[in-house]
Amino acid sequence: MANYHKPEARTVQELKDIANKLRVHAITATNTSKSGHPTSCSSMAEAMSVLFFHVMRYKLSSPRDPSSDRFILSKGHAAPILYAAWAEAGLFPVSDLQNLRKIDSDLEGHPTPRLNFVDVGTGSLGQGLSVACGMAYVGKYFDKASYRVYCLIGDGESAEGSIWEALQFASYYKLDNLCVIVDVNRLGQSEPTSMQHNMDVYWKRLDSFGWNAILVDGHDVEELCKAFHEASSTKTKPTALIAKTYKGKNFPTIEDQENWHGKPLGDKSEVVIQHLNSLIKNTGPLQVAPQKPLKEDAPIVDISGVKLSSPPSYKIGETVATRYAYGTALAKIAANNSRVIALDGDTKNSTYSDRLKKAFPERFIECFIAEQNLVGVAIGATCRNRTIAFVSTFATFFTRAFDQIRMGAISQTNVNFVGSHCGVSIGEDGPSQMGLEDIALFRSIPGSTVFYPSDAVSTERAVELAANTKGICFIRTSRPNTAILYKNDEVLQIGKAKVLKKTENDKVLVIGAGVTLHEAITAANELAKASINVRVLDPFTVKPIDSETIIANAKECGGRILTVEDHYPQGGLGEAVLSAVAEERNITVKKLAVNEVPRSGPATVLLEKYGISAKSIVKAVRDLVK
Amino acid sequence: MANYHKPEARTVQELKDIANKLRVHAITATNTSKSGHPTSCSSMAEAMSVLFFHVMRYKLSSPRDPSSDRFILSKGHAAPILYAAWAEAGLFPVSDLQNLRKIDSDLEGHPTPRLNFVDVGTGSLGQGLSVACGMAYVGKYFDKASYRVYCLIGDGESAEGSIWEALQFASYYKLDNLCVIVDVNRLGQSEPTSMQHNMDVYWKRLDSFGWNAILVDGHDVEELCKAFHEASSTKTKPTALIAKTYKGKNFPTIEDQENWHGKPLGDKSEVVIQHLNSLIKNTGPLQVAPQKPLKEDAPIVDISGVKLSSPPSYKIGETVATRYAYGTALAKIAANNSRVIALDGDTKNSTYSDRLKKAFPERFIECFIAEQNLVGVAIGATCRNRTIAFVSTFATFFTRAFDQIRMGAISQTNVNFVGSHCGVSIGEDGPSQMGLEDIALFRSIPGSTVFYPSDAVSTERAVELAANTKGICFIRTSRPNTAILYKNDEVLQIGKAKVLKKTENDKVLVIGAGVTLHEAITAANELAKASINVRVLDPFTVKPIDSETIIANAKECGGRILTVEDHYPQGGLGEAVLSAVAEERNITVKKLAVNEVPRSGPATVLLEKYGISAKSIVKAVRDLVK
Repeated sequence: MANYHKPEARTVQELKDIANKLRVHAITATNTSKSGHPTSCSSMAEAMSVLFFHVMRYKLSSPRDPSSDRFILSKGHAAPILYAAWAEAGLFPVSDLQNLRKIDSDLEGHPTPRLNFVDVGTGSLGQGLSVACGMAYVGKYFDKASYRVYCLIGDGESAEGSIWEALQFASYYKLDNLCVIVDVNRLGQSEPTSMQHNMDVYWKRLDSFGWNAILVDGHDVEELCKAFHEASSTKTKPTALIAKTYKGKNFPTIEDQENWHGKPLGDKSEVVIQHLNSLIKNTGPLQVAPQKPLKEDAPIVDISGVKLSSPPSYKIGETVATRYAYGTALAKIAANNSRVIALDGDTKNSTYSDRLKKAFPERFIECFIAEQNLVGVAIGATCRNRTIAFVSTFATFFTRAFDQIRMGAISQTNVNFVGSHCGVSIGEDGPSQMGLEDIALFRSIPGSTVFYPSDAVSTERAVELAANTKGICFIRTSRPNTAILYKNDEVLQIGKAKVLKKTENDKVLVIGAGVTLHEAITAANELAKASINVRVLDPFTVKPIDSETIIANAKECGGRILTVEDHYPQGGLGEAVLSAVAEERNITVKKLAVNEVPRSGPATVLLEKYGISAKSIVKAVRDLVK
Repeated sequence: MANYHKPEARTVQELKDIANKLRVHAITATNTSKSGHPTSCSSMAEAMSVLFFHVMRYKLSSPRDPSSDRFILSKGHAAPILYAAWAEAGLFPVSDLQNLRKIDSDLEGHPTPRLNFVDVGTGSLGQGLSVACGMAYVGKYFDKASYRVYCLIGDGESAEGSIWEALQFASYYKLDNLCVIVDVNRLGQSEPTSMQHNMDVYWKRLDSFGWNAILVDGHDVEELCKAFHEASSTKTKPTALIAKTYKGKNFPTIEDQENWHGKPLGDKSEVVIQHLNSLIKNTGPLQVAPQKPLKEDAPIVDISGVKLSSPPSYKIGETVATRYAYGTALAKIAANNSRVIALDGDTKNSTYSDRLKKAFPERFIECFIAEQNLVGVAIGATCRNRTIAFVSTFATFFTRAFDQIRMGAISQTNVNFVGSHCGVSIGEDGPSQMGLEDIALFRSIPGSTVFYPSDAVSTERAVELAANTKGICFIRTSRPNTAILYKNDEVLQIGKAKVLKKTENDKVLVIGAGVTLHEAITAANELAKASINVRVLDPFTVKPIDSETIIANAKECGGRILTVEDHYPQGGLGEAVLSAVAEERNITVKKLAVNEVPRSGPATVLLEKYGISAKSIVKAVRDLVK
């Protein structure tokens, strides 16, 4: 703290004034919209004023400039004060704040990247810090740049476990370019938080999690200035400002009172605004102003046009697990573009993301067994197009991060998810490890692409395509070795199915993917011996699904479709196919899927037991053509 | 610790011997199954021996006796040593251990309640402690009984945020009947844990989270005995034994080595078993033995036949939000049965679960903003049929606990979930708060029942039915007030749809639920003016869905179905209907759903904008009958 200079008295007063102006904006905007959270804004007003007008270094001309400091408002319901800060800083007219929550305004109830100054959507609590960790990791280790990352979290949301996952990640990786402000305003939505104003307990916890923890009066701008300075001069540790604040601060009769969460002030506003205005001393032009980055040292990066460094190289008939092919492809695209990174949650030797680690150790981020943070870090790492991230774990463990993935779609993220160990075909480990709802999860994400490759060649192409595709991509990989189906130069495209077996008089169109596609081929061969011809189709992507090819082929097969999936019957391949043919008359769909919680056992026995084996397909086809 | 007596030397040796016997069983069983985690078992062998033969009080004759101590193995991959402990205790023959992971054995790869000594499925890490918290809460506050709850967690899984949510819950509610053992064996699956053997840091963290934290040598049975005694005599705080251990302890050349996770010992076994046998001193009959409960003081409870204490009481035409009717019904069934409880994550004044709190404050458990723990606690609270639990939050925030809900199905839980604020009809708060994938989530859960009531009468009946239905139930409630549709004595049943509008010459069967059912009725009235008759159907439950009624009515409407849902197009009502009619020729389904990430705005404007309003329905019907 040797080089710390106390701000001048005038600066201090101006920062106080700005805080109160932000409060007024939060009140008037939420009054106009008749909804919103003015009291949640008020507790953090001084922190916002000090950050935006004294501490952070950023460009108003380019709010997502790579060299600018980042700010994440994790408690997204305080959006009005975030908007007010940017407006007061000069990004857009203050009068626009009155458009809060209107249908034609991007100033939504919670922040989304429809706004050019917002990197990620927030509003589902406890997620911002993981995103901030991803940004800080990129800043320190990939960009090696001067920008800093600030994240403001609420005390209520600090009950979310994801916060503690992120705290551990940040200290483990020594993210000293990261600073979190905990707005301890004591009150949750429906009652006080469990920790209320136990500031010492907060301090002990943050300290024990390896942070430089500083207790501050969150309404004292001088204390805040000093603490932020300490944060920026602290090395090898992230810093947390634990700010004791009051919800509805400076709102007479409302401050620190219950039952004021998420409520505009309405007829109380006049008195409150009068009081706030009386606190504002400088009414003329300000001396304080947003400060530009000291250094523009974030490198220019290009994440477009990523290619496999060499084409797939397999022999027809060879057997390779698609999870292994994922590792191969990941290392190949990483060789092609230095901004390809991989993240995993201590399953890298099962998902084969360790193939990237072996090739490029510095581009692998181990996130340990904390899938929520794993996903959040990846979303943060890809912000401002700094990286192309592939996140892997067992397919079923993405259920742990469904909320983060859902918010990822709102955040317009391009993160790629790769889930291994899908379905009963994993065998003896049993149901807790089997992905049987992962397609349902990822299909429900707006704008997502869901790849379900069935051999190593198409897996490699799925990885290459995912790297270049906007929105969330999911690649489902399988544990068992399966035969190569495609030539190394086969062209695979999103939304384009492949017909693998076809005759002139096919009776049923069988659609499988992964292990069930191989079962379908076996079944087709078996049925052919009995002179029952079936057509076999590989959808390649379950979303978008190739409706045109499916409908055309189904019609040629008497309108009979049989789907077979190593997944529960809801939301998976079967229902994707049903949606594809929904508006067609004369097409029926019979679904084979896993209809109950499976057991432990050998993979082949389980496929049989749960009715998705070649034998089950043969039987189903015979029933259909009877 | 005044009344602590050191165990006799003979007892100590026997406990050591049992630990090594358990190790041998874990090795031989995983060798036979050719998969499994013997090294993960070995680190916790002494803890298991001391717990099962010295500390815990339980009945072998009735492993789920309500007055017995509970034990949760959170690190479920160590299942072989759990099975070995129960076998050595005498529950079943030791020779059965060789059936590990076989298809016809309940000794699965990870524990499930198919075994009578397992309360919940584990194997997705970091979940056991929340379940244990639920059990301990019930023991202390509802049963007011002497039984204690033990939970063993791995150090790797302590990276999961859900663990820290549970730790906070336990200390906040002073669960002094809860004892956790942290097996700090230093090694994860693919590399060392981030904390390795930093025992002091573990201690600081547990202490700061309000626990009585005790560092122990996890391989020293005397230390363990003493620490467990301290745990049982510590009041107002839960106790954590932070056990320093070694993965593969007593396995020469394997102990504390990397790359031994999840691997049977194979040809190394002989040497290791020889070594372990050499450590076993007593080969004759044991003096130590499982101890029965000191008191059988858990009350007998009856959770069957729950009824609304009074029937629904609304007037046709009145408007009531279904979320509000949920609160009404919850209080009514709580009045009928003293074991009905409710849990919420600081949204009780939005979900209206606070209606139960107001009526029966002691039966409401506030879990704050930590949805993973919220769900885990509920699962624990319902174990051994001690309570009927209703868990509420915003529908979309159940995505935060998808993994817990998924594991809940494996655990055969009967927890009821109630998600409010579904769809765009919540309005200005924006997409982060809108449940648009919740039906997809809950439909994918095996054995689940998904209620989507469209008025207050059917909501009350949904609550009553859910309370009496096995498996996971989900009730989707809406924010806006909607008109009463049913008479107060209307009989509603699971899997039975209601036809609300019908003529002789209907052209389309329109299926909506919640707000979209009301839009459908409006649309039908509008279309009738233009002499286009449509039939309107309320499915009541989306799963199971009433295929029979839907097919019959669709056929009477020219085979044309139109579904309208305030949900994304995947996995929701539309696909449920598609699955219901999948095998019918001559039925088409047109789906209206929310096709993109929505914006903030007034509810009515959003319904219009995203194409699920009455106007959108009118247009779609006109297109269909063109």
